[in-house]
Amino acid sequence: MQIIEVKTKSRPSTVYCGAGAAEKIGEVTRGKQLFVLTDTNVYRLYKEFIEEKFPAAALCVVPAGEKHKNRHTLFFILDKMLDARLRRNAMLVALGGGVVGDMGGLAASLYMRGISAVQVPTTLLAQVDSSVGGKTAIDHRGVKNVIGAFYQPQTVICDPLFLRTLPKRELRCGIGEIIKTGALDKGVYEKLKAGENRLFNLSFLEEITADCVRFKAGVVEKDECEKSGLRKSLNMGHTTGHALELFYGRRSHGAYVLIGMYFESLIAEREGILAHAYAEALRALIGKAVTLPHFENIGEAARVALYDKKNEGGDEISLIVPKDVGAYAELRLPVGRYIAYLQEIGGGIA
Amino acid sequence: MQIIEVKTKSRPSTVYCGAGAAEKIGEVTRGKQLFVLTDTNVYRLYKEFIEEKFPAAALCVVPAGEKHKNRHTLFFILDKMLDARLRRNAMLVALGGGVVGDMGGLAASLYMRGISAVQVPTTLLAQVDSSVGGKTAIDHRGVKNVIGAFYQPQTVICDPLFLRTLPKRELRCGIGEIIKTGALDKGVYEKLKAGENRLFNLSFLEEITADCVRFKAGVVEKDECEKSGLRKSLNMGHTTGHALELFYGRRSHGAYVLIGMYFESLIAEREGILAHAYAEALRALIGKAVTLPHFENIGEAARVALYDKKNEGGDEISLIVPKDVGAYAELRLPVGRYIAYLQEIGGGIA
Repeated sequence: MQIIEVKTKSRPSTVYCGAGAAEKIGEVTRGKQLFVLTDTNVYRLYKEFIEEKFPAAALCVVPAGEKHKNRHTLFFILDKMLDARLRRNAMLVALGGGVVGDMGGLAASLYMRGISAVQVPTTLLAQVDSSVGGKTAIDHRGVKNVIGAFYQPQTVICDPLFLRTLPKRELRCGIGEIIKTGALDKGVYEKLKAGENRLFNLSFLEEITADCVRFKAGVVEKDECEKSGLRKSLNMGHTTGHALELFYGRRSHGAYVLIGMYFESLIAEREGILAHAYAEALRALIGKAVTLPHFENIGEAARVALYDKKNEGGDEISLIVPKDVGAYAELRLPVGRYIAYLQEIGGGIA
Repeated sequence: MQIIEVKTKSRPSTVYCGAGAAEKIGEVTRGKQLFVLTDTNVYRLYKEFIEEKFPAAALCVVPAGEKHKNRHTLFFILDKMLDARLRRNAMLVALGGGVVGDMGGLAASLYMRGISAVQVPTTLLAQVDSSVGGKTAIDHRGVKNVIGAFYQPQTVICDPLFLRTLPKRELRCGIGEIIKTGALDKGVYEKLKAGENRLFNLSFLEEITADCVRFKAGVVEKDECEKSGLRKSLNMGHTTGHALELFYGRRSHGAYVLIGMYFESLIAEREGILAHAYAEALRALIGKAVTLPHFENIGEAARVALYDKKNEGGDEISLIVPKDVGAYAELRLPVGRYIAYLQEIGGGIA
């Protein structure tokens, strides 16, 4: 198990990462009035674990799935917190995937203007990405994460024990963000290339999860609230990925991030930002995790991207694209050119 | 006009305080995509001012009154922000009293995880108290401010021009918090005693507002998120005051804070914490701002206080009470004794 400190200005976080991390739960929650948030899927699988680790906690089980990451579920949680008469020194434990973590973090940030939050991510995606860094949110009126807060958890517990029950689709989702990290960080990239034939191997994933968390911690420390542009680099692949996810919506988030990176790497190559050899190596890595289908109407899908909240209006679209091993660039394109690229590229993939 | 910097860890704020402060609006909002939040009362009085100062802004007018400080109005505002296609670098201006400021600050903190907020408080209460320090909130299920965030405004503009349209009840409300500040700060106390016969005089209020803001800024800088207990001192009078406000609810918030301080000073005196001479001087000052009625069923009202969120459970109640000029103490009392005191004291006031 590794211990990674995230030293943000607002509130430092400790991440316990690796086998045995879940054993820290007792120590972290000792003496606290506890509120445990989870969803129906996780509860079905980890009912006994929850009862053993949190015998005296108030328990709140919400319906599983991103479509419930909305104001109604948020207020359902806040109401349960009130019902449990949580005090200001209480602690909320969010045990689940990214949806539970995002909503739990937001509820913890809002209840009495903030109680302690502990993230216990049970998916690979949440372990490598969303549980660290304090981004919390709900979706609203079709806009992803448009209502939320930057609110650092006190503790994050990333234990690979939870990955054993994950379906392959969910593993692939996390691998999407891991490969994205590889496109930003040289060390992670080299490990991924060396291990590209065992991407779905749990012990390989355990090791690389800690590397991804450490990388993300460094970014978040320097740019907690996404002001300087550094944290924005973590959105690589997301502009196109989100657009495809919103429009087609059958695959996992991480799969769409990979597909987004794939397309955006082709665009970056044509724009002369990214060299061919590295681009090919990166796409080969992506190909180990995801198969690329032909997309019908990709131009329509891309138009959806214009409403992506990360694009600050206007007639340009902003993409974070790989440039070289461990390096990235921001590429601003006129919307028309971006859509033309996608139509040309999307149609060309079998 | 005075310029007061509030140097909090999360985000520094600048307060422009005094005649002419409103002239700063143009400079502060220049080049920004603007969203102006106000309520029906303020809009009626300041329609022309708003049109002149914010000609290109998206405008959102919410119904006036604390009863609208709820989740429905909050989401009404957030929906209007989405409708206005506000970007992450947009700015919300909350022009109004404490309710507008609290909801506007919360909406600004939540929209895309935080856009800039500017507070333009139009009541004395909001100028001396709620607009400074970043406390934002809505009420929920009968619990005041139970859902909210600490979110510092970028700028606060406290201009006495708005006080000219305030009814006396609203002035008294602000004077309540000013006298509370006097019980915490020697300088403010001495000014108040020297001017106790012109408490409702606007030029007196303009001067003392800046002193109160400066005092509050110092407290907020040291204890932004109410962790160390220092910021809790600002709740002097509020435990009993809130209880009476919830139960009787006819007078203004500040009037109840004063009545709360009055009662709590009598309790503190009986508990041997507060010397008689200073207690009398303080109560005389309170008497200049508010008349004290006889309260029927004050014991019942006090029981309401037990659910006040500031009391972290258990069988004790916590009061912040004056101790000496510029000094305070926390007094923890068994609930039964607190209620008995109130019944005895409340019944004795004519």
